[in-house]
Amino acid sequence: MKAVLVNCTLKASPEPSNTGALAGVVLDGLRDRGVSVQELRLADLTIDHGVVTQGGEGDEWPRVHDAIVDAEILVVATPTWVGRPSSYAQQMLERLDAMISETRDDGRPLAYGKVAGVVVTGNEDGAHHVISEISGGLVDIGFTIPGQAWTYWNRGPGPGPEFSDTSEGHDWSEDTGRTMAQHLYEVADALRGLRG
Amino acid sequence: MKAVLVNCTLKASPEPSNTGALAGVVLDGLRDRGVSVQELRLADLTIDHGVVTQGGEGDEWPRVHDAIVDAEILVVATPTWVGRPSSYAQQMLERLDAMISETRDDGRPLAYGKVAGVVVTGNEDGAHHVISEISGGLVDIGFTIPGQAWTYWNRGPGPGPEFSDTSEGHDWSEDTGRTMAQHLYEVADALRGLRG
Amino acid sequence: MKAVLVNCTLKASPEPSNTGALAGVVLDGLRDRGVSVQELRLADLTIDHGVVTQGGEGDEWPRVHDAIVDAEILVVATPTWVGRPSSYAQQMLERLDAMISETRDDGRPLAYGKVAGVVVTGNEDGAHHVISEISGGLVDIGFTIPGQAWTYWNRGPGPGPEFSDTSEGHDWSEDTGRTMAQHLYEVADALRGLRG
Amino acid sequence: MKAVLVNCTLKASPEPSNTGALAGVVLDGLRDRGVSVQELRLADLTIDHGVVTQGGEGDEWPRVHDAIVDAEILVVATPTWVGRPSSYAQQMLERLDAMISETRDDGRPLAYGKVAGVVVTGNEDGAHHVISEISGGLVDIGFTIPGQAWTYWNRGPGPGPEFSDTSEGHDWSEDTGRTMAQHLYEVADALRGLRG
Repeated sequence: MKAVLVNCTLKASPEPSNTGALAGVVLDGLRDRGVSVQELRLADLTIDHGVVTQGGEGDEWPRVHDAIVDAEILVVATPTWVGRPSSYAQQMLERLDAMISETRDDGRPLAYGKVAGVVVTGNEDGAHHVISEISGGLVDIGFTIPGQAWTYWNRGPGPGPEFSDTSEGHDWSEDTGRTMAQHLYEVADALRGLRG
Repeated sequence: MKAVLVNCTLKASPEPSNTGALAGVVLDGLRDRGVSVQELRLADLTIDHGVVTQGGEGDEWPRVHDAIVDAEILVVATPTWVGRPSSYAQQMLERLDAMISETRDDGRPLAYGKVAGVVVTGNEDGAHHVISEISGGLVDIGFTIPGQAWTYWNRGPGPGPEFSDTSEGHDWSEDTGRTMAQHLYEVADALRGLRG
Repeated sequence: MKAVLVNCTLKASPEPSNTGALAGVVLDGLRDRGVSVQELRLADLTIDHGVVTQGGEGDEWPRVHDAIVDAEILVVATPTWVGRPSSYAQQMLERLDAMISETRDDGRPLAYGKVAGVVVTGNEDGAHHVISEISGGLVDIGFTIPGQAWTYWNRGPGPGPEFSDTSEGHDWSEDTGRTMAQHLYEVADALRGLRG
Repeated sequence: MKAVLVNCTLKASPEPSNTGALAGVVLDGLRDRGVSVQELRLADLTIDHGVVTQGGEGDEWPRVHDAIVDAEILVVATPTWVGRPSSYAQQMLERLDAMISETRDDGRPLAYGKVAGVVVTGNEDGAHHVISEISGGLVDIGFTIPGQAWTYWNRGPGPGPEFSDTSEGHDWSEDTGRTMAQHLYEVADALRGLRG
């Protein structure tokens, strides 16, 4: 099986991404089960704003689109800004909106039978909301969200350290990330007959 | 397979429920596939506020809990009030919160391998948000949300007719409800090996 | 000026309420400015589900309604359950829905010129979302939300201690609560000409 | 008084913006009260992703920042994509995040005493959620949200016409927009003593 990580951090490489660090635990859990993983960071690409698959000249979304279409498992990783998913995460949903009408020969949406999960970090509060927002959008597009297919880390109340500044709470977030990998894998495997 | 409808309308029987009317299309789609369906309306029961499975004397939540545990498919139907899921829908999530720690012999949450979807009506706007809120809560508890496992009806902008006052838009909502039934059934069937 | 606290904890008196404890800081800040404060806990009252001001026999919402109409400042306090406002908070919004059409002689909604703010506690994550949900609902009904008129406490990631189990983070939450009281008071005072 | 419209449509000029068309009603209502209005469309500017006021070379956010700082009233207009605020709206919140720590001489946030409201269009559903998300973010940054300071247009259920494709529902959305202008103006006027 194949998985793709879409990292929606606002920071371009080589800046370290907290969200990417936690997502790494999930990706390791997938690799341990024989899944090959491709990692994409939207801040490293030129992503047009819009709701079509093909953007303007130089737009690199089609590469992300094709990786998602090619994979059985989508992992979305995003920081929390002002309590909400990052602007790159929303750009991703907007571009994926076009996939609702890209149907298979049997009329099902391209995403049908694929699974997705969400990894969130932040320095304060908001992870469950971010998970609901992104999961809800992905369900609209046709992805299946396995039970407890998410993990997160933050440390409120109020502004505090970032994930990489402390080891507090890492154990819980990483354990939860390993469970996420297991659920993504098992459900993706079970749904193989529903994919095109 | 078994399905249970938890109708979170604020109206007790025999008052007609708009949400229940639209949910009926989904239930018919499940029955057509051989699923037996139990319908529960929270407003007809005594449901304590709280986050435990066993409430006080006279509390009828355990009956709802047992029906959910016994079924493979959960359909939640709710009206939209002030743009959000009904208070009964939130009471349901609060009571289900206890199910996170009710695990199977293999350590998985009781809801693992079960699927859920959401039906929403309202006289204005807010369905996708209500779907995300309830789906997000159910994923926390361990349910899997199949792609596009929802339908809704409303008719904004501003206050307008209720579902049963008009036939406008019913075709789309009912078609979407039939697709919801198909996705719930197919994913529930595919996940049979993941249930306890 | 008068303020009313609507505490939406699921626990009835005399059980201590974490949310009520943090709200106490805000109420003290209001009392220090000469505001008289009435405290109501919905779990201590009989509150019907519904969207009308007058419920059935024994329904005690009218008492809450009248206290809100009589006050210039509304403080809503709620725990976070499954990442969302408590079912009592949603019941409050549903009953307040009727106030949209209870207009003054000049046609303005009864809530116009009144201010509101939100206090949230939880043992994990979700406060900003809860604040947005309740604030958004109150704006629909006609209340004005002053800048930074909220405070919260939680301590993720994952399940952890409750507010009263630890002193971690209390300083920030209490300072933020004192600022909330100041903003509620100043804006309520400035809006006096807009009230009926 | 001064107002600024931040239009978060995904379309660059000269493409017509549905959201901008409905926002025009609000701006007219402000102009009628003597407010001077500046209109900015983020899709026409180069806006870096990030959470600082000063971006990289060529970043035009500082112009938006300065217009917001200079104005008493902020109107945010956004389309609804996948049920959520546009990616430009989230980019705006992310850049405004830096304003939380840009305080006045008296220690208050720069936004304190300023008011804001939200205009939403979409071809289906989601406006109240979009309004809550953006209003919630702006309250965090220090803006005051007057009661009923929003308007919207959409026409569910399911995909349908855009605002400019039909006249259905325009009357309600425009009336609500005129009320929004009145509330923004009156509250901004009442708060004059709270601004720096």
